[in-house]
Amino acid sequence: MGRITLAHGAGGRESEELIKRLFKFVKLRKVPNGTGLDEFDDGAFIPLSKHIVFTIDSYTVDPIFFPGGDIGKLAAAGSINDVCVMGAEPIAALDSIVVEEGFPLDQLNKIIKSMITTFENENVAILGGDLKVMPKGKIDKIVITTAVIGYLNDSKELLLDSKIRPGDKLIVSGTIGEHGAVITAFRMGIEAEFEGLKSDCEPVTKVMRTAKEIGGIHAAKDPTRGGLAMALNEFAQKSNITLYIDEEKIPIREEVNAFCEMLGIDPLFLACEGRVLIAVDSERADELLSALRRAGYDKAEIIGEARRIKGREGFVILRTRAGGLRIVEKPTGELTPRIC
Amino acid sequence: MGRITLAHGAGGRESEELIKRLFKFVKLRKVPNGTGLDEFDDGAFIPLSKHIVFTIDSYTVDPIFFPGGDIGKLAAAGSINDVCVMGAEPIAALDSIVVEEGFPLDQLNKIIKSMITTFENENVAILGGDLKVMPKGKIDKIVITTAVIGYLNDSKELLLDSKIRPGDKLIVSGTIGEHGAVITAFRMGIEAEFEGLKSDCEPVTKVMRTAKEIGGIHAAKDPTRGGLAMALNEFAQKSNITLYIDEEKIPIREEVNAFCEMLGIDPLFLACEGRVLIAVDSERADELLSALRRAGYDKAEIIGEARRIKGREGFVILRTRAGGLRIVEKPTGELTPRIC
Repeated sequence: MGRITLAHGAGGRESEELIKRLFKFVKLRKVPNGTGLDEFDDGAFIPLSKHIVFTIDSYTVDPIFFPGGDIGKLAAAGSINDVCVMGAEPIAALDSIVVEEGFPLDQLNKIIKSMITTFENENVAILGGDLKVMPKGKIDKIVITTAVIGYLNDSKELLLDSKIRPGDKLIVSGTIGEHGAVITAFRMGIEAEFEGLKSDCEPVTKVMRTAKEIGGIHAAKDPTRGGLAMALNEFAQKSNITLYIDEEKIPIREEVNAFCEMLGIDPLFLACEGRVLIAVDSERADELLSALRRAGYDKAEIIGEARRIKGREGFVILRTRAGGLRIVEKPTGELTPRIC
Repeated sequence: MGRITLAHGAGGRESEELIKRLFKFVKLRKVPNGTGLDEFDDGAFIPLSKHIVFTIDSYTVDPIFFPGGDIGKLAAAGSINDVCVMGAEPIAALDSIVVEEGFPLDQLNKIIKSMITTFENENVAILGGDLKVMPKGKIDKIVITTAVIGYLNDSKELLLDSKIRPGDKLIVSGTIGEHGAVITAFRMGIEAEFEGLKSDCEPVTKVMRTAKEIGGIHAAKDPTRGGLAMALNEFAQKSNITLYIDEEKIPIREEVNAFCEMLGIDPLFLACEGRVLIAVDSERADELLSALRRAGYDKAEIIGEARRIKGREGFVILRTRAGGLRIVEKPTGELTPRIC
């Protein structure tokens, strides 16, 4: 298929032909009665008389292909997930791709197909986007930015990190840290030692639909950069509450544990890209856990609860396997750059 | 203010502190009754029961500071403009910044302030965003992606490139090619020879409001990459119509003409970042031109019209100053990479 040239990013005839070729596989090209990829206009039209949730993220992951996914799948799943954890139903996406001159077109095609498939499997229409080319050496391979819109039927459906109440149970939808572990292992060149380790990268649409059917959800968050530790701290601070977590309840795959032990890394700091942390009314927690397991999330667990303890608001406290208590801080520094 | 570190992009405590510091100047932090920068959640909530227009673009311009603007102003104006030319009123924005490790924080602060000011001058709320850091040498300085949402009170207000009718007049809101000329001059190191040349980078919000008040607008487009030539060709093809343009009517500054003559460049191929090409019902054209001039757009001109000529659908035909006719093609190749 050749390689990317600067002309592909110049906005003229070559840009247009390339974009039409790369995106011809998109089936959901507009939302009903709207405009999008076919019109190829300056913006897309969404005839939506509903409340909306709006998100953006740039994806810089290195390597761009990894076990369990690639930068295209990640760019779709990551922004879908940010809309889902706000309680909204994702409906439409735009992408903006910045690619290095000389990048192989077949790889770009593969990445874009992967992004398209991920969006379309969740019924998210791709309405348009942008493609820029930077000269060789001015950007490392490719960066993809996606913006996703979701809708809420009622503003009461909105989930905010600040809405957790004392007594709420915290549920994690699956094993943690796989994405962070596999990317870090690749970057260190030791991925061969952890066979079977693959990224958990996937949309959390189904988890969130299951949760909304049960009801009683107060907040949800996908623990990406900074891992479960960062997500829990954001919950605790924004809700001004204390979170108690049972270390032995946190689901972690053996490969991730082995990886963390070898390198002395705390698995709570490793990014997930397909898990959700949910704060749910205690009366609905067992029901939600059962529903998630029935829906195929058999590693889902109740890992802790929220309490209001004077002077401890905003803290995350871990009951360790050894029986002690320790405060889980927000991660600082950079474990692995370009994790997502 | 120091320099960007990888930790600033790691999603942990340093990321949070940096983002809060850089974006503390934002006054419009949410839309009424919505959520945004203060909640710092996974997405932003917009309680909007209207039809929406949605756009995204990545900005890679080099140099990042240029006469008339910088990459921050460009990133705000560019996406605002894509929403405006669809006939919508821009209301909310998200930004995603990818910056190189070691980038000076004071420059980042200046760029972000410039972006904030541009959005806020147009009453566009900044609801959130993303900040990623790539290791030194993996990206050239900074890339900013912005997504902007606008609303339409009625779907009839939607302007599409395909809606031009025979007889429509084409109006350009000001002199063309300044942005393309100044960036190209800088990249060639000859900017000193064209004193007074500066980018036309600015939001077209006021132009479009003026036009909508007059009425009879069928399509609008901001001629960015590929310049007026690309915009005219898109109009002609999407509306399946012939466009006749008078070369002598096209407003061009003397500095831009001098630049084009020296380098043998066609000014029709030079990008604008603050102009609009409008297709308007012929009965309203003179009224719109007067209104634009009264509003301060004193270089606005009627540059041509649309006709339906069998076998010439999709063509742009230029009546040259010498009196001949020539077909204006879509630009091919790359005049200057990273123009926007």
